[in-house]
Amino acid sequence: MAGSTWGLLFKVTTAGVSHGPGYLCIIDGCPSGMPLNTEDLLPDLKRRKPGQSKYTTQRQEDDSPEIISGVYAGKTDGTPIGLLFRNNDQRSFDYDSINTSYRPGHADFTFDAKYGFRDPRGGGRSSARETICRVAAGAVARKLLSFVGISVVGYVTRVGEVEAHVPDPVMVTQAMVESNPIRCPDPVAADAMAEQIDSARKSLDSIGGIAEIVAVGVPPGWGEPVFDKLKADLAKALMSLPAVVGFEYGAGFATAKAKGSQNNDHFEVRQDRTWGLGTKSNRHGGILGGISSGEPLIMRVALKPTSSIPQPQPSVNRNRQPIELVTKGRHDPCLLPRFVPMGEAMVMLTLVDHWLRHRAVTGIF
Amino acid sequence: MAGSTWGLLFKVTTAGVSHGPGYLCIIDGCPSGMPLNTEDLLPDLKRRKPGQSKYTTQRQEDDSPEIISGVYAGKTDGTPIGLLFRNNDQRSFDYDSINTSYRPGHADFTFDAKYGFRDPRGGGRSSARETICRVAAGAVARKLLSFVGISVVGYVTRVGEVEAHVPDPVMVTQAMVESNPIRCPDPVAADAMAEQIDSARKSLDSIGGIAEIVAVGVPPGWGEPVFDKLKADLAKALMSLPAVVGFEYGAGFATAKAKGSQNNDHFEVRQDRTWGLGTKSNRHGGILGGISSGEPLIMRVALKPTSSIPQPQPSVNRNRQPIELVTKGRHDPCLLPRFVPMGEAMVMLTLVDHWLRHRAVTGIF
Amino acid sequence: MAGSTWGLLFKVTTAGVSHGPGYLCIIDGCPSGMPLNTEDLLPDLKRRKPGQSKYTTQRQEDDSPEIISGVYAGKTDGTPIGLLFRNNDQRSFDYDSINTSYRPGHADFTFDAKYGFRDPRGGGRSSARETICRVAAGAVARKLLSFVGISVVGYVTRVGEVEAHVPDPVMVTQAMVESNPIRCPDPVAADAMAEQIDSARKSLDSIGGIAEIVAVGVPPGWGEPVFDKLKADLAKALMSLPAVVGFEYGAGFATAKAKGSQNNDHFEVRQDRTWGLGTKSNRHGGILGGISSGEPLIMRVALKPTSSIPQPQPSVNRNRQPIELVTKGRHDPCLLPRFVPMGEAMVMLTLVDHWLRHRAVTGIF
Amino acid sequence: MAGSTWGLLFKVTTAGVSHGPGYLCIIDGCPSGMPLNTEDLLPDLKRRKPGQSKYTTQRQEDDSPEIISGVYAGKTDGTPIGLLFRNNDQRSFDYDSINTSYRPGHADFTFDAKYGFRDPRGGGRSSARETICRVAAGAVARKLLSFVGISVVGYVTRVGEVEAHVPDPVMVTQAMVESNPIRCPDPVAADAMAEQIDSARKSLDSIGGIAEIVAVGVPPGWGEPVFDKLKADLAKALMSLPAVVGFEYGAGFATAKAKGSQNNDHFEVRQDRTWGLGTKSNRHGGILGGISSGEPLIMRVALKPTSSIPQPQPSVNRNRQPIELVTKGRHDPCLLPRFVPMGEAMVMLTLVDHWLRHRAVTGIF
Repeated sequence: MAGSTWGLLFKVTTAGVSHGPGYLCIIDGCPSGMPLNTEDLLPDLKRRKPGQSKYTTQRQEDDSPEIISGVYAGKTDGTPIGLLFRNNDQRSFDYDSINTSYRPGHADFTFDAKYGFRDPRGGGRSSARETICRVAAGAVARKLLSFVGISVVGYVTRVGEVEAHVPDPVMVTQAMVESNPIRCPDPVAADAMAEQIDSARKSLDSIGGIAEIVAVGVPPGWGEPVFDKLKADLAKALMSLPAVVGFEYGAGFATAKAKGSQNNDHFEVRQDRTWGLGTKSNRHGGILGGISSGEPLIMRVALKPTSSIPQPQPSVNRNRQPIELVTKGRHDPCLLPRFVPMGEAMVMLTLVDHWLRHRAVTGIF
Repeated sequence: MAGSTWGLLFKVTTAGVSHGPGYLCIIDGCPSGMPLNTEDLLPDLKRRKPGQSKYTTQRQEDDSPEIISGVYAGKTDGTPIGLLFRNNDQRSFDYDSINTSYRPGHADFTFDAKYGFRDPRGGGRSSARETICRVAAGAVARKLLSFVGISVVGYVTRVGEVEAHVPDPVMVTQAMVESNPIRCPDPVAADAMAEQIDSARKSLDSIGGIAEIVAVGVPPGWGEPVFDKLKADLAKALMSLPAVVGFEYGAGFATAKAKGSQNNDHFEVRQDRTWGLGTKSNRHGGILGGISSGEPLIMRVALKPTSSIPQPQPSVNRNRQPIELVTKGRHDPCLLPRFVPMGEAMVMLTLVDHWLRHRAVTGIF
Repeated sequence: MAGSTWGLLFKVTTAGVSHGPGYLCIIDGCPSGMPLNTEDLLPDLKRRKPGQSKYTTQRQEDDSPEIISGVYAGKTDGTPIGLLFRNNDQRSFDYDSINTSYRPGHADFTFDAKYGFRDPRGGGRSSARETICRVAAGAVARKLLSFVGISVVGYVTRVGEVEAHVPDPVMVTQAMVESNPIRCPDPVAADAMAEQIDSARKSLDSIGGIAEIVAVGVPPGWGEPVFDKLKADLAKALMSLPAVVGFEYGAGFATAKAKGSQNNDHFEVRQDRTWGLGTKSNRHGGILGGISSGEPLIMRVALKPTSSIPQPQPSVNRNRQPIELVTKGRHDPCLLPRFVPMGEAMVMLTLVDHWLRHRAVTGIF
Repeated sequence: MAGSTWGLLFKVTTAGVSHGPGYLCIIDGCPSGMPLNTEDLLPDLKRRKPGQSKYTTQRQEDDSPEIISGVYAGKTDGTPIGLLFRNNDQRSFDYDSINTSYRPGHADFTFDAKYGFRDPRGGGRSSARETICRVAAGAVARKLLSFVGISVVGYVTRVGEVEAHVPDPVMVTQAMVESNPIRCPDPVAADAMAEQIDSARKSLDSIGGIAEIVAVGVPPGWGEPVFDKLKADLAKALMSLPAVVGFEYGAGFATAKAKGSQNNDHFEVRQDRTWGLGTKSNRHGGILGGISSGEPLIMRVALKPTSSIPQPQPSVNRNRQPIELVTKGRHDPCLLPRFVPMGEAMVMLTLVDHWLRHRAVTGIF
């Protein structure tokens, strides 16, 4: 256990379950003196919020945190930032029928196996509502990174069979992403994705997809080989989110089919860069030897289709008896649109942590 | 920095570079009383060793460790296991020409950017020779896991355009894997892969691929949400290895195209299992909610083609001048065959760590 | 930064300052299935509470936590236990005059030096009110330890010139300790200590002292050499509390004058013990080689006199100007009585952590 | 287990036992570019070495390390520094008679209880020979600290009944300390201490003492409340060393008898300091609120008399039978002289770690 803390120097600890009183988030290690208030956290929290459109769950949650500590007179004071989120639309009755059932694709059985019993009021600790803490912490990280010129943008590149056309990931802006409820910067694909999701929803089903996250402005030198390579920590960061089943960066799985002569990115002199060089292409996704190269970080994750689907499914209950199960509740037919801020958050938390680790030892000799 | 330690309770720390005197590996946290000697480490080390076939580098290394501590009278004594590997075939002159050049796809530039200078005698700390420590530690983990009935088998499923046909990953044995130098359990595909590698080598090129790793016997309940989920730590473990650019488990990226009704694995009563149930299919790769489900763990990683290729490539040197670069050295034209023991090692280190974390809090109430 | 988390497996993270909205405490790693409710936390919290007697500060605080997570249906559920404490008697005006002054003995200057500015509303993060989180977490630890037969009792052995006579530390019960407001099990000394404190208070002064903490029932084998020795972690645990300036265990500093022949505790056969032996004396305080010996753990800490005294003192302000400073506020004239539950808490948190670390690797071979 | 790593950012991991092949030490997180070679390590190692005088054990050990990694072309290269020490004067026969005996004051029984068996060839992992790794790592830390103007000096202030007179701890130099084999800067006391040790040795006994360690040049602001306070980590650092049974800083245990009006150090304007102020006295030992104040750090530790004494003692063996035990071996009659470099090393490792933690977050806003 004790798996609820992220980071070495920029440490995020969360507590809470979906149908209890609420969530706590403690962000320890934020540099002091940064302007911060609740409004800084709301935009990302709003993007994560359920009920934004018909493509996401209709559950209503209050996602405004109370800042309990860590901010004094409008600035971070160097002490841990404490956040409190209240749960207030619990409707636990929705979940009554599944009290002892093991829902397919869910953590019901594994939590039961691990802890001896589980909170039957919903996903409990495995509910994606926990990401409210991560997104809030990510918003703090976003603000920090803005001071060193780093911006992180995520978007949906695939829903089911529909793939977006994104000519240059580095040119995608948050405005482009937020221009449609799917969070896909290709408006034509966005419409087709919306249709796919709607069709899945109508057929009492759900659908998977892929999101891409880009970080621009990361200077060369971040990442701590051999185990805490930047690619390794980014993978862990994103794989720790619910429903994520795959991670790749740069050319990723496609490199399996490539030759070295095709895949190598060649260095070239670049006078416009502080460090004087760059690569002509970016198949390496901004990471070489586990360390940032100065090129934009580009990574992708695959999300499985929502496990909760409102059609009857065979399963087993706690007493090891076969049952037929109908999940009522309210669930996203596709997780991708709301995943975008969650994924960005984990990338930003990881970048801040590596930034601080790098600062600790740099510029001495 | 300080990124050279893996694990929370079963802690592996490594030191060393490819062209220095050697490598140190300290394994701290191994339970006492387990029979262990050098011979236990050699089989996996031999599988990792260069020069095994024409499909791998012809560099000769002495891969026998000296056990400096942690074993008394043939058994682990509970204190840190210390291993020493000597480097003895260094041929550093091979690397002279690249002393100040930034090889494409390599960590030359990023190490330089991070540390202010780099060891020009080869890959330095980023050399895959460092995995000798991981494979040795993995062999200790393998022995530990054998006492709880867990076996871990990896193999190559793709080289370039050739994909293996593996009807049931769970049935693949190490004997099948070791029956050919490619480490592919499908002998027909293995031949085609060998041809691809040979062809790449002859055209002074290299080629990428995919490996799959399966862990059978992991009981339900391992993994520590919300950040140290089993899937997250396995991803980090494998992504920390050189050349790995993608990770997925279970159905992985393919789920992006799937519907929930197709992707959900249904639970069924299984009298033959201690815990009385199982899933009919295993698209979830043995992990639900970040916790092991009792089904076999199945994961895949993509490796890029070797960055070192013996053909001229444009690049930049330390002085920010354009150069043409020819990598001499001796390098694997395809990393996959030798990756198999490295990948298995990281999976096993992760499993032992999670096993111990689980033991710490289980069975009290 | 990032120094607000304690423990490896039983992890306690706190946030909050004395004059902000409140405190958060997250206890991550508590085994699931243990009965727990708010009432379990109140007795220790009440003992820590200010305003208990004229020997402690008259500040009124509401010390009842709200359990936000980690408990379901009256039992711990294996997920992080989240606690919220509200601050409600802030009287920040009391502290106005010291806004820019550096109080002697306080962290005003050092926080300023560290974070660039500080919360001028009181002690901020360095206020002893933060121990409310530790005492609550300690109460959870106390309950856990009770299931393995371990009890932890602390008490005051010295205030100023008055030393208690405690014939056998192991026989001291909490009832004896709580029988007087000083928390000294020697009633005669307790009266003399009360007089000393009262006299210090009347002369607008404060006074230091020593507390002893005893843990009975710790089995042999806990502690992780070479760095995480039990004595080392207990020292850190207690030294992390406000005002603690010294730590010793067993015969402690007195051994500096001793000969080996006097100081060695001789082993003897003890049929009444599970492990069949014990030591005739306990000058080693229950720890040998950094590992528990099965004998009671005995340790002592020294606390300096309260730095806040209501008499004028020369000092310097933020602008580096000499000032005369009068601390108003309400402060304990002697910290010892209220320290007892804080010290016990840190000892118990340390013991639980080492218990779990020991469980992780024990009984395999 | 897994207790053999020290530090968060400047991480030291050790392995090895006294009668095995040797010791490994990995120092991970040292900034790159610092000149370093074996000669930098030898002075401190020589001071730690047994057999320096008749006041220390006559055991001969080769204490020269081989640098396996982390140094390239005379400078640290940012990768882990790996050190190898060989054991070469083992005389394991000396220890035969105690193979199954539990020596009083030693870790024989507790290791046995913890690990199920123990290395009977000597102290095993609990042997003070392990500190060879710490002293070598400390020498690296010493060099690092010299670049920020910090010097750390330790010395003996008490042996048995003899107390040194040290008018001003800050004025003690290493030259003064090394001018006599006792490492006491008061030459008169040093002679009396030598007599005490000699007398203990002749009467087949041993004797305890106290050492003081001073760090000059630590700027204000180091230390990470609330758990990783500087005083807490220094306490753990020193208490993790063999035979240390007590720790205090500043006025320490003496403050228990003090009034606040006596104990408070008053701030005064100090133009000669970068930060413009200081305290008139230094009873706070350079730490306020767990953070360095800019005044010299002053701390003291008590060491028990050597447990190994060459006179017969009653004990118990592994079979729970009473025995009479005679420790042969060769042991220090007083541990204090050789403790000095060990204590300095742990203080320096702690300071470097806190320096880097401080650097990570300072100077951003």
